[in-house]
Amino acid sequence: MQIAMIQDRIVPFEQLESTYLDRGIYFGDGVYEIVRSYDGKIFAFEEHLARFADSLAAIQITGADIDRIRSRVKKAFDAAGIANACIYFHITRGSAPRRHTWDANLVPNFFLTVTELEDFTGIKTKGIAVSTHPDWRWKRCDIKSLNLLANVLARQDAASKGCDEAILVDENGLITEGAGSAFFAIFGLTLQTAALSANILPSVTRKFVLKAAGNVGLEILEKSLTPQQAGRADELFTAVTTKDIVPVVNFDDKSIGNGHPGKYTKLLIEQFHSFTKSEGV
Amino acid sequence: MQIAMIQDRIVPFEQLESTYLDRGIYFGDGVYEIVRSYDGKIFAFEEHLARFADSLAAIQITGADIDRIRSRVKKAFDAAGIANACIYFHITRGSAPRRHTWDANLVPNFFLTVTELEDFTGIKTKGIAVSTHPDWRWKRCDIKSLNLLANVLARQDAASKGCDEAILVDENGLITEGAGSAFFAIFGLTLQTAALSANILPSVTRKFVLKAAGNVGLEILEKSLTPQQAGRADELFTAVTTKDIVPVVNFDDKSIGNGHPGKYTKLLIEQFHSFTKSEGV
Repeated sequence: MQIAMIQDRIVPFEQLESTYLDRGIYFGDGVYEIVRSYDGKIFAFEEHLARFADSLAAIQITGADIDRIRSRVKKAFDAAGIANACIYFHITRGSAPRRHTWDANLVPNFFLTVTELEDFTGIKTKGIAVSTHPDWRWKRCDIKSLNLLANVLARQDAASKGCDEAILVDENGLITEGAGSAFFAIFGLTLQTAALSANILPSVTRKFVLKAAGNVGLEILEKSLTPQQAGRADELFTAVTTKDIVPVVNFDDKSIGNGHPGKYTKLLIEQFHSFTKSEGV
Repeated sequence: MQIAMIQDRIVPFEQLESTYLDRGIYFGDGVYEIVRSYDGKIFAFEEHLARFADSLAAIQITGADIDRIRSRVKKAFDAAGIANACIYFHITRGSAPRRHTWDANLVPNFFLTVTELEDFTGIKTKGIAVSTHPDWRWKRCDIKSLNLLANVLARQDAASKGCDEAILVDENGLITEGAGSAFFAIFGLTLQTAALSANILPSVTRKFVLKAAGNVGLEILEKSLTPQQAGRADELFTAVTTKDIVPVVNFDDKSIGNGHPGKYTKLLIEQFHSFTKSEGV
C-alpha cells in the first residue's frame, strides 16, 4: 500500500491533502510577488503584476490569469482593511505526486496573505548595518521564484552579525544585490547600482529609485561595485517594496559617511514618498 | 484583520493550517533524501542517512534527530509492504509567518512517502537519450535541498526533446551532472566523472558505481567533461538511487557507441545489483 507519513503519523497516500503534494514544497516550483499599500493605496500594483506575469512565463506556468490575480489581490486587500499592508502572493505549478517533469493539465495553486507592516521610521532615521555574504543563488535571479534558500542563509548570517541585510557578492567579487533588496551607493553626485541581468531581480522599487535620483539631480551609473568600493561610498542604501529606501550606515563593520543617513538618501526617501501618493491604486 | 487567501477563499490568518506557513513552500527551506528497496531490503540506508545529516547541518536545521528519522523510515517502509519501494522524505525548518530569518525554537516538519517503483528493465536494456541544458542551479549543490526549480526546468526541456534526462553544463562549458543523476563516461578502460565539489551532489549511487568500476577493472578519472568529449565516449551512463545505472545511448542527438548499451555499462549494472543484495537492510 502506498503511504505517506507526517511527523509520526501514517496516512494512506490517496488520503493525503493536496497541500502535501504541492510542487511548491517539493521543488520550489512557483513564483511570488510582494506589494504594499501606503495609507490605503497599493503602490505600483501594475508594475508588480507585470513582473509576476514575466516570472510565470519564464517558468512556463500557463494556467494563471493576471486579471483574476488582480481582482483576488484587490478583494483580499479590501477585506483586510489594513492601511499599511504587506500583500504577499505566490502561484505554484500545482499539486501532484513528486516527479520533476509536469503535466500540462495541472491546476496552479494561488496563495496570498495580507499582514500589517510595522513602522519602519526607526531604521529609516538611524539607518542599518549590512554585511557581505557569497551570492549562492541560482543563475536566473531575474525570476522571482520560491527557490530562496540562499537568501535565507545569507540573511541569517547577517542577523548573526547584528546586521539587517546581507549584501551578496558573486564569484567575480562583485556585489549583485541584497538578499532581499536592491543595493545602491552614492559617490559625489553619482548614484551607482548594478545593471540588470539574469543575476539580479528587476526590482520595481529600483525603477522608482532611479526616477527619484533624476528628480534630485543625481547622475546614474549602472555598474557593479566591489565591497571595497562600497565601503568607501559617501552614502549607501537598500531599496525593497516593503520598506522602500533604507539608509545603510555600516558596511561590513565600517562606518559609512559620518555614520548617519546621508543627505541624498534623505532626499530620495522624500521623493519616493511623494510617488507613493501619486502612483497608488 | 490579517487574512490569507487560498485560490478564491478568504481565511483569517490565525485559522490558517500550518502547512500553508511551511518554510518549505515559502523558501524551499528544507532538505530531502530518497532511498529505495530492492526485493524488500533498503539499499545503502546508512549512507543516505549520513548525507541527510550533512544536508541538515549545512543549512543549520538542528532539531532533527537521525535515530528518530531512521525509525520513522523503517516503520513506514514496513507498513507499506512494498518490495521495490521508493522512499522519499524531507525535513523543512518548520512553519511560521514568512520572514527570511528563523527563530531557534521552530519545530522541523517531517514528511515521507513510500511509493512503488516501476520496472526499469526497459530503459536499462535499451538505454536512454539525454540532452544538455545550462546548469542554472545554485552554488551549493552539495546540499540536497528543496530548491530544485533549475532541475525541474532542465528536465522539462529534456522531456520536450524526447529525452529522459538533462545533462547540466556550467558556465565554463563543463558537465557537472544530470538534473537528477550522476553522469559517467567510459573511454577505453577509463571511467570518467566529475570530481566532487560544491557544484555536485555527493551521490551515494556514484560511490557504489566507483566501487563496481574497480571490481570490473576500470581505471577511474575524476575530471569534468565537455559535451563534445562526452559525445565521443565509448559508453555513457547515468546513476541515480531509484534506477541505479542507466545506459545512455544518445547524447544531444548523437548516437553513442553502436547505439546500444555498452559492454562495461552492462558489467557495472551486474556488479551494482550484487551490491544491492549484500548492502541492503
